Amino acid sequence: MKEQLLLLMDNGQIDMARLKALLPQMNTADIADVFEGLSREKIIQLYRMLSKSMAADVFSYIDADEQQIIIEALTDSEIGEIVNSLFADDAVDFIEEMPANVVKRVLQNVNPEKRTVINQLLRYPEDSAGSIMTTEYVDLREDATVREAFDAIRETGLNRETIYTCYVIRRDRMLVGVVSAKTLMLAKPDERIGDIMDTKLVFTQTTDDQEKVAGMFRKYGLLAMPVVDTEQRLVGIITVDDIVNVIEEENTEDFEKMGALAPSDEPYLKTSILKLASNRIVWLLVLMLSATITGSIISGFEEALAVLPVLVAFIPMLMDTGGNAGTQASTLVIRGMALGEIRLKDMLRVFWKEIRIAALCGIALSSINFIRIYLMNGRNAALSLTVTLSLFATVLTAKSVGCILPMFAKRLKVDPAIMAAPLITTIVDGASLVIYFSIAKAAFNI
Amino acid sequence: MKEQLLLLMDNGQIDMARLKALLPQMNTADIADVFEGLSREKIIQLYRMLSKSMAADVFSYIDADEQQIIIEALTDSEIGEIVNSLFADDAVDFIEEMPANVVKRVLQNVNPEKRTVINQLLRYPEDSAGSIMTTEYVDLREDATVREAFDAIRETGLNRETIYTCYVIRRDRMLVGVVSAKTLMLAKPDERIGDIMDTKLVFTQTTDDQEKVAGMFRKYGLLAMPVVDTEQRLVGIITVDDIVNVIEEENTEDFEKMGALAPSDEPYLKTSILKLASNRIVWLLVLMLSATITGSIISGFEEALAVLPVLVAFIPMLMDTGGNAGTQASTLVIRGMALGEIRLKDMLRVFWKEIRIAALCGIALSSINFIRIYLMNGRNAALSLTVTLSLFATVLTAKSVGCILPMFAKRLKVDPAIMAAPLITTIVDGASLVIYFSIAKAAFNI
Repeated sequence: MKEQLLLLMDNGQIDMARLKALLPQMNTADIADVFEGLSREKIIQLYRMLSKSMAADVFSYIDADEQQIIIEALTDSEIGEIVNSLFADDAVDFIEEMPANVVKRVLQNVNPEKRTVINQLLRYPEDSAGSIMTTEYVDLREDATVREAFDAIRETGLNRETIYTCYVIRRDRMLVGVVSAKTLMLAKPDERIGDIMDTKLVFTQTTDDQEKVAGMFRKYGLLAMPVVDTEQRLVGIITVDDIVNVIEEENTEDFEKMGALAPSDEPYLKTSILKLASNRIVWLLVLMLSATITGSIISGFEEALAVLPVLVAFIPMLMDTGGNAGTQASTLVIRGMALGEIRLKDMLRVFWKEIRIAALCGIALSSINFIRIYLMNGRNAALSLTVTLSLFATVLTAKSVGCILPMFAKRLKVDPAIMAAPLITTIVDGASLVIYFSIAKAAFNI
Repeated sequence: MKEQLLLLMDNGQIDMARLKALLPQMNTADIADVFEGLSREKIIQLYRMLSKSMAADVFSYIDADEQQIIIEALTDSEIGEIVNSLFADDAVDFIEEMPANVVKRVLQNVNPEKRTVINQLLRYPEDSAGSIMTTEYVDLREDATVREAFDAIRETGLNRETIYTCYVIRRDRMLVGVVSAKTLMLAKPDERIGDIMDTKLVFTQTTDDQEKVAGMFRKYGLLAMPVVDTEQRLVGIITVDDIVNVIEEENTEDFEKMGALAPSDEPYLKTSILKLASNRIVWLLVLMLSATITGSIISGFEEALAVLPVLVAFIPMLMDTGGNAGTQASTLVIRGMALGEIRLKDMLRVFWKEIRIAALCGIALSSINFIRIYLMNGRNAALSLTVTLSLFATVLTAKSVGCILPMFAKRLKVDPAIMAAPLITTIVDGASLVIYFSIAKAAFNI
């Protein structure tokens, strides 16, 4: 159906009758997909074809660029209508991406309660629980009955992001329990909420990091989690559909940091080359200057190279293998810490594990390397042994550095993800060259 | 409370009365955490303290090692009781981790229907939709009423993994619609399911890859998704809590591939050093031998190095910067493709973008580099220019290779994640040295 719709939109003359018949049968997320890449005129035309009941829902799935085009084409009252029917968290996501003049116009046209909520949510720091929560939920009192709970759900349900968990609060809004829709459906109409509610609360505070919240969702297998303020008063909920996005966002951030990039929220194709370049230059520069130090290490051994020029041929192999061995260790440690599988108290255990792994890998690589060099370099045992020993020591150093640095970063409350391939490689490069030339000088009496 | 429990378990003499009082107040996932690291005796002791209603739930959260200890300590009928009350997908997850003799004993002691279901689920390929689905769901007929639907939920709800979406099927089990609990609660008791159900179906087939399924959950913001066979007959559902784990699993796999590691499902601390070493050796070996080629490139330029030994000092800087510039491009492209933000048809667009980014980064790095080398190497303009030009060409090559290779892999249906830092670095190393020495030879007439 999406293909049909795309085809319809591609024609110069749009067949309005067929479009009107097609849209109601489609999933709103699929309709939203079609907007991407359309011309400004077609975006506005297509959006105007949507029924009122679909318009806000489709809007929440559309990318920011297209959202802006639509908003700019709508009247004030149309804007108010759409944003009033968005969930508060979706409205905030959208507003955060808009330029100031659009934000102003949007806020002027929403109803006062919504404006208050949006302004409040906009104030929470980025990536905090408060910034991803919504204020639309069902709350109940302990002395309500199951029947009254159902009435409350029916009355407010359509505007609530999730009605499958109801939150039980006291008069002062302090959270005291939760009741799932499942429990309500299995209970008798006259039972008191206080008697059937679950008081084992899993909740988070507005200022908690979204990554921590995602970890709790994963651990407890939740559909929604209540968010409380410092006095444990209920202020919002976070739903699992947003958490799925948070997890991907946090992973993207780690991939970027581990790839020597400044993290960015925008999709690659929608980011300008100037922004993309500036996200890369700082790390490239830092690492380039660090590599210069490695270069001066080589210069320091120039006389050794002059005596034995063949030594230079093994530099790339030593540097690359050291980098890769270190990257392997740091990747596993960084990922293990992100998933909570490795904790700081495991540091010694991890180190001891890596030492033994390094010994195993080092022996395997060195043996193969010795044979290869011995056969291919005129059966020069001293040379073969020098390179082989250096390789073994390099792997050992690389694995140690690769596992220790991320844990060290974590202890210093720096994101361990920056202690990944690029930085580890640069550090290990220098170390491996010092080892290599020192062994060579000793072996050949240079 | 978890800390209290840990403290209680740490004492030589366990205070049974306090333990019995503490357990019912705790969340099952938190209790499961406590098992980790306990001795075999204490694991069994603690597990036996759990009430029947908690035992199966806690069991599903415990790690495989501890699950095995518990199962080995239980009687046949106790095993049957626990596994019968596990959801089918949790039972399969558990069985897949057990050795053959435990599997045999478990299957002998579950009830026949459960055994049939488990055997059926075990047959689906790893990482397929079938392997993560459960067969416990609520199905309805079109001519049922809302009242009958609630009766069906109440009757079967306790054994169903999710009751918040009901699936409407025909007599031949063909899926025709879905009805959310929200719709049911907002409908009148006498309405027909066929009239209120949603026929815009989002479903998956048993053989679909779990990564694709996770992408659909993200796109449509679902709580559960029906799984059908080749004739569109409903055979199971996948719930969002399992998808959260699938997403982390798939990300871990990408991190591992991008870190030159063979992917593994087991947590780092629970994997033997032999297994960890064997996951690393193949890539280390392949990359070590590739780096040997880079080494022979240098050897080929030995006469140039003999004439101008200072050239060797810039090798690490060129190699590392090339590797990092390529890694940045490949990281963004691999991640963009994993999230569906970059598609194969965008290849030319991506390439053109990277060329321009490379030019920007190249100019910035080269200028700084020129000044540094010029000032620090006796104002040798020819040398400074040689290194600077090589650096610029290296960055250009690195960004091109870094963005093209992952897309090329995808076109060949190979996982783009293997075209990451380690391989890109090795490839770019060779290229950068050829560029460097060629320019040097031309500049100095060697």
